[in-house]
Amino acid sequence: MTVNILDVSLRDGSHSVRHAFTADQVREAAKGMNAAGVRYFEVSHGDGLGGSSLQYGLSATDELKLIEAAAGECTTSEVAVLLIPGIGTKGDLQAAVKAGAKMVRVATHVTEADVAAQHIQLGRELGLKTAGFLMMSHMASVEEIVKQASLFESYGAEIVYVTDSAGAMLPKDVTERICALKQTLQCEIGFHAHNNLSMAMANTVAAVEAGATFIDGSLRALGAGAGNTQTEVMVAVLEKMGYETGIDLYELIDTANNVIAPIMQQPQEITGGSLILGHSGVYSSFLLHAQKAAKQFGVHERDILKQIGKLKAVGGQEDLIYEVAQDLAR
Amino acid sequence: MTVNILDVSLRDGSHSVRHAFTADQVREAAKGMNAAGVRYFEVSHGDGLGGSSLQYGLSATDELKLIEAAAGECTTSEVAVLLIPGIGTKGDLQAAVKAGAKMVRVATHVTEADVAAQHIQLGRELGLKTAGFLMMSHMASVEEIVKQASLFESYGAEIVYVTDSAGAMLPKDVTERICALKQTLQCEIGFHAHNNLSMAMANTVAAVEAGATFIDGSLRALGAGAGNTQTEVMVAVLEKMGYETGIDLYELIDTANNVIAPIMQQPQEITGGSLILGHSGVYSSFLLHAQKAAKQFGVHERDILKQIGKLKAVGGQEDLIYEVAQDLAR
Repeated sequence: MTVNILDVSLRDGSHSVRHAFTADQVREAAKGMNAAGVRYFEVSHGDGLGGSSLQYGLSATDELKLIEAAAGECTTSEVAVLLIPGIGTKGDLQAAVKAGAKMVRVATHVTEADVAAQHIQLGRELGLKTAGFLMMSHMASVEEIVKQASLFESYGAEIVYVTDSAGAMLPKDVTERICALKQTLQCEIGFHAHNNLSMAMANTVAAVEAGATFIDGSLRALGAGAGNTQTEVMVAVLEKMGYETGIDLYELIDTANNVIAPIMQQPQEITGGSLILGHSGVYSSFLLHAQKAAKQFGVHERDILKQIGKLKAVGGQEDLIYEVAQDLAR
Repeated sequence: MTVNILDVSLRDGSHSVRHAFTADQVREAAKGMNAAGVRYFEVSHGDGLGGSSLQYGLSATDELKLIEAAAGECTTSEVAVLLIPGIGTKGDLQAAVKAGAKMVRVATHVTEADVAAQHIQLGRELGLKTAGFLMMSHMASVEEIVKQASLFESYGAEIVYVTDSAGAMLPKDVTERICALKQTLQCEIGFHAHNNLSMAMANTVAAVEAGATFIDGSLRALGAGAGNTQTEVMVAVLEKMGYETGIDLYELIDTANNVIAPIMQQPQEITGGSLILGHSGVYSSFLLHAQKAAKQFGVHERDILKQIGKLKAVGGQEDLIYEVAQDLAR
């Protein structure tokens, strides 16, 4: 059996390096992943195309330059981009295609697939491999996810992803969601994990066993929160289980160790903060904001995150983190 | 349901800090774990009592002083020690009991339980909670493990552990082993994981679901290879699943972050080397030896580890690592 691996080091990892990737770094990583046989890898601001902003964090290098640098190294790999409607625009997608993108994943909060209709249609019109990406999937029931995924499919998505943005799921949560989608949808199913509960690998394997054919990983697990499923480890595990990935494990380990590891600003460990993300079901990209707010207001990051979890805040509500910190300080 | 957590930070973690724990560090960690409600934690050289040697690495502080320091902080926790017959002796165990140890885990290679008979009997005579510990359990069939575990039980072991020393198991491997032991043995069953394939947490959960009542973890995952199941994350996951651990999560996170994290000599990441351990089924404590040998002979650590995996080397054959490195260099 074959599984398609999409590496997100150069997109989800953007959070972890505070959006400071350089064109040279991206070029080297792209070169390594292309040589290793990684079919798709994503290059964008951590919050998708157009994410560079005061609210989400400014990119050190224009993401179009990064996409161009990556695409220039691809002989067999293809560059994907993430697009969150409301952050990125249709114009941003057209520009990304000019820079060399061949795939788009249109991401919405798990209950808001309907805002993606035009963007998914545009992806298809531009000839891109086009996917829908349901963020914070732990917050919706299985029925709701099926409903939202069906909307994506009706707009033309070729793949629908269950996305565990908070790293809050356990394998049984993944299995029931992917199985329900397999039963209802005709398109392919994907899965994206975070490791806040140390379950990213097990959740990814559960997704594959339930029928997912597209799975995400990142080298050295570089990503928001506690990071993602570690791509090179995932390849070893899938090999051990008898799946075909088409990837050269040693080439990938070399890219992880020689290109990604030196870029990392901190090791991708599960610290108290990232653990509370998974435990409370909070969006992984909120972690560094909570750490900043904790310092600014002299309160504990985990108290902020626990409160944010209770408020069920979703992507786009980054300002709330600072309000909560201010309240806690009073 | 209740699960007993045994923390191995101060024993398996000894490998990761090159056996350099000080009495003050151990005292602080013990104080935190006792306050958090951790029922048992292990304190010994990484290779068990008497492990301090040129072959296994010299301890910076006599382990009896470390056991004393830990025991002095315990009001509800109890100190366990690891004893590998052939490395540690009956005299070492008697000395450990004088220093305050209340539990012993007698460890052998998975096919050699018979060398533990006298040590297990001594543990019982000394009034210790006494366990058998089957290292490198991935190397034996289910039938063989049942046979060896039954020997431990016949000697008087109150708990028998399946130990994934190489971090090479996947959840189904754990499930079939623990289920077979539950069906055959009367004593309690334990499980000890390593995270080389990023499966430590999933394997631990699989063990609990199959009936294991004693599980190991370490704070910040501090341990040989890619480290162990991360104790504070395990507590959060088990809570989420409805198990009772009797542990205060925040107190434990504070101990992990404030006491263990500052001691760490390197982050407990899955690097190329630790991944190859899990992929090839090599004893986790061989990693730092392989790194040293790689430097010494100018060869790649992963080539050493892959060859060691082919040779099916087991604990005690550390010298072989240098021989393999020398051969590769030729």
